[in-house]
Amino acid sequence: MTLKVYCDRMSQPSRAILIFCKMNGIDFEEVHIDILNNQQHTPEYKAINPMSQVPTIVDGDFTLFESHSILIYLSCKYPGVASHWYPSDLIERAKVHSVLDWHHANLRRGSVGVIMNNVLLPLNGLPSNPQAAEEAEKTLVKALTVLETFWLKDGPFLTGRSQPSIADLNLVSEVMELQLLNEKEHDRILSPFKKVLQWVEDTKSATAPYFEEIHGVLYKASKEFRELIAAKSATNE
Amino acid sequence: MTLKVYCDRMSQPSRAILIFCKMNGIDFEEVHIDILNNQQHTPEYKAINPMSQVPTIVDGDFTLFESHSILIYLSCKYPGVASHWYPSDLIERAKVHSVLDWHHANLRRGSVGVIMNNVLLPLNGLPSNPQAAEEAEKTLVKALTVLETFWLKDGPFLTGRSQPSIADLNLVSEVMELQLLNEKEHDRILSPFKKVLQWVEDTKSATAPYFEEIHGVLYKASKEFRELIAAKSATNE
Repeated sequence: MTLKVYCDRMSQPSRAILIFCKMNGIDFEEVHIDILNNQQHTPEYKAINPMSQVPTIVDGDFTLFESHSILIYLSCKYPGVASHWYPSDLIERAKVHSVLDWHHANLRRGSVGVIMNNVLLPLNGLPSNPQAAEEAEKTLVKALTVLETFWLKDGPFLTGRSQPSIADLNLVSEVMELQLLNEKEHDRILSPFKKVLQWVEDTKSATAPYFEEIHGVLYKASKEFRELIAAKSATNE
Repeated sequence: MTLKVYCDRMSQPSRAILIFCKMNGIDFEEVHIDILNNQQHTPEYKAINPMSQVPTIVDGDFTLFESHSILIYLSCKYPGVASHWYPSDLIERAKVHSVLDWHHANLRRGSVGVIMNNVLLPLNGLPSNPQAAEEAEKTLVKALTVLETFWLKDGPFLTGRSQPSIADLNLVSEVMELQLLNEKEHDRILSPFKKVLQWVEDTKSATAPYFEEIHGVLYKASKEFRELIAAKSATNE
């Protein structure tokens, strides 16, 4: 039975898993769960993932969610996966776990908050909370600073590795989500972080051509969202 | 060289690691980093862990932080660790990873927010943010509901296991932190969750006598904090 990946290319961890499967020649069926239209909340999908989140994989009769866990599972299950993705050395593996764990309450939390308050709420005509927006940006900038000065200090990839691990894939997909901000805001937040920007480019190159292929939906949405928000703010002026 | 565990028994992930080491006969030196007195922010400690958080382990010349990563590393490094803590079976291990990943943005986020707003800020005479307190409680109650109805549905331990894994140790230590709330609040939040309460007791029993030994500091603090906050609120009336 083919591995099923329930996902939406608009979701950063979904993209990480799709790129990973394509890079490693894993045969899978992509099942689109349209999160902008709340398809993750349908009873059908909740029967698969009661948390109503993407991505989820179904491998035979085994269902798994949480993207870090999925990437580890796939790395271990498929012998063809190159060892740099999830190193078998105890210490190298521990470092990959450490940056993945750090990600949850830092980069991801900041990025999700910033996109929610600056893009998704305004797009849906809902009031954003200025205090929440400010705190999310603080969390995001702090996380980008830690990426720049600590996790990438021995680069080119996270924890000083010479080839990307599953952590690079997951965290770069998160940084890419910031493309949904307007260009000025995107550059204002990201431009001070030269190592982060270089690392994004290095990860893109290391995962070509799949990285750009899978991010196509995000690039298209980014263009549309920027135009819509600009039109809304022009109307409000 | 003996494994060093930099920690504070007032921190929930620190307690999980201490109990784990004791349960598995791992020889270690406990180095107390007094978080209530901001010792995690000293230059000496920042040289060990630039994130200024506990716990951290130093094993020879390898430094590791993030408690989930530490528990996985210790489980793999010491051959004496019983296999139920971190199962070697691919699917069983994936389930343990999944609940640990879920923990970050759900149970932990809710619990930390509730304790910050209801205990630590009032204790330090700082204003708490009613909206943040309400949101933290919502996150916490939702996480407890998911524990009760999903992760513990096939009990007695998380993901339907018959013996505790590192996930039980970590998540139960988090639930224990709620002891810092006053008794009424603690019971109001936790009493609807019968399976969660039973699971806490089962984890305590499975890790006796170390569970209670390591939680002694928390129990003492709980008593003191409850008295202090009661005295403060009496003065304010």
